[in-house]
Amino acid sequence: MPVDWVMRIISALGVGAGVVSGVMEARRKRMDLVGAVAVAFLTALGGGTLRDLLLGHTPVFWIRDENYAYLTLALTPVVFYSTRLLRLSVRSIIVPDALGLGAFTVMGVEAGLADGTSMFIASLMGVITGVFGGVLRDVICNEVPLLFKKDIYLYATCSLLGAWVYILATKLGWLHTLALPLAVAFVFILRLLAVRFNISLPEPRTPLSER
Amino acid sequence: MPVDWVMRIISALGVGAGVVSGVMEARRKRMDLVGAVAVAFLTALGGGTLRDLLLGHTPVFWIRDENYAYLTLALTPVVFYSTRLLRLSVRSIIVPDALGLGAFTVMGVEAGLADGTSMFIASLMGVITGVFGGVLRDVICNEVPLLFKKDIYLYATCSLLGAWVYILATKLGWLHTLALPLAVAFVFILRLLAVRFNISLPEPRTPLSER
Amino acid sequence: MPVDWVMRIISALGVGAGVVSGVMEARRKRMDLVGAVAVAFLTALGGGTLRDLLLGHTPVFWIRDENYAYLTLALTPVVFYSTRLLRLSVRSIIVPDALGLGAFTVMGVEAGLADGTSMFIASLMGVITGVFGGVLRDVICNEVPLLFKKDIYLYATCSLLGAWVYILATKLGWLHTLALPLAVAFVFILRLLAVRFNISLPEPRTPLSER
Repeated sequence: MPVDWVMRIISALGVGAGVVSGVMEARRKRMDLVGAVAVAFLTALGGGTLRDLLLGHTPVFWIRDENYAYLTLALTPVVFYSTRLLRLSVRSIIVPDALGLGAFTVMGVEAGLADGTSMFIASLMGVITGVFGGVLRDVICNEVPLLFKKDIYLYATCSLLGAWVYILATKLGWLHTLALPLAVAFVFILRLLAVRFNISLPEPRTPLSER
Repeated sequence: MPVDWVMRIISALGVGAGVVSGVMEARRKRMDLVGAVAVAFLTALGGGTLRDLLLGHTPVFWIRDENYAYLTLALTPVVFYSTRLLRLSVRSIIVPDALGLGAFTVMGVEAGLADGTSMFIASLMGVITGVFGGVLRDVICNEVPLLFKKDIYLYATCSLLGAWVYILATKLGWLHTLALPLAVAFVFILRLLAVRFNISLPEPRTPLSER
Repeated sequence: MPVDWVMRIISALGVGAGVVSGVMEARRKRMDLVGAVAVAFLTALGGGTLRDLLLGHTPVFWIRDENYAYLTLALTPVVFYSTRLLRLSVRSIIVPDALGLGAFTVMGVEAGLADGTSMFIASLMGVITGVFGGVLRDVICNEVPLLFKKDIYLYATCSLLGAWVYILATKLGWLHTLALPLAVAFVFILRLLAVRFNISLPEPRTPLSER
């Protein structure tokens, strides 16, 4: 079916964006190829892995469908050893990454709904799938996760809202073929707008005195 | 039953203490609301989540009983945006936190015993449930876990001893309604004494020369 | 059977090497005994735990076979409080650690193959079992994982190649009693050679300009 093919391409773009951002961080920390592979793997596939563990979907998805692991492991050395390619990819990562965020979010929501979890839990599964790879990347690279900072511009928020768009469209009886592209497009556009206009969540008014 | 109701209130206090300490750490690291939610969630519910994963109790407890997730997600923005409330809570966190430590420990032990694990493994499950949320908070906030430092004053030790109080009372055939409050009270009092008198585990006598 | 006994001794050596390197890192970070126990446990048993979670082998192996946990918890205080013993162990850790790397790798591959996973996934399970404890040690101690650095001298690479030696020998119909010592010896020798001759993976030619 066409929609499934489009989803496959979009999630491959998302994996690619995860690999590039993982390799970039590994290079910054002067890691070798082993480090780059591990960080790229965690970034690209870590969110879905955590979702599967929490829901009890084991073996996890990249053991059930090895294509994700193949793609990640094939891309990483190419990006790692070609500094020029890496620089080019990082500059243009925002578009495939925003598409991937949408695709991963919807796939996470579907995994929850298929288990009969509530809409609330399904939306959390969508967000975890969409964003947690980047958190694991930063934790393993010894950084405070960028996702939790103001400068990420609504990354998790886009994922959460997109999850609800997909859930509501599904509950309204919309066809999968309609709900899915709608939700991915919603996340994609919202994310690009947030980056373009530097939109952040409101901060607490009073600063916290450090001790 | 009254004991179950008391346990529910005590574990809600424990979740609340976890949220406050998570939000505090998030504010210190200048995170936004997304960061605060993630850190609060990990602090309050991370220990029980790890226990469930190790035992294979999936989907994990906060997917099976959504009240934990609701409470955490409802409390976090209130504490995050009200700096005054946050300061007040942090000053008085020690009492609800010590109660929560007792409740989470007992709940972890029960999860182990219910699976037919040995007393040894059940006691480890109690400690992991009681203390590991704080470890995950510090790992994700890029700090060496406070739990592993001298200044934590027997936090994990209180949990371990309380786990054994509960296990032995249960094995002696005591009623659940007796063993449970006994163990929670034991952890609570021991913890407050350790903090009051700055009690730590013995340190190695010889320092290790750094290189 | 003799081979199984040798494997037991070798994996005990591997656990011992994990405990020593975990306690060493805990001492460097001025942790107390609780920290040393947690870090030693993660270092010695963390790789196999992650493998079990990914494959869905729960409860995880050290709950099913408590001897691993007993050994880890018995060794840690001895090594932690005897600074002299710790110094001696650290100097001579390389040999038991290299043996343990081989044993853990083979055990991880076997866990994968026993589940009917592909050779590719089985080899990943071998590497995760062999090396991920050290990654978790560094993450929880707030360091960039040493495994991902040039100075680790092919640690993960030895594990990966050893995994394939074991897989191919098994697929060629070799007896378990032959394939197993061959693979462990292969990892052991390759690892000692890599350390002796400071062999690393090739680095990217162009450095990445920091911003």
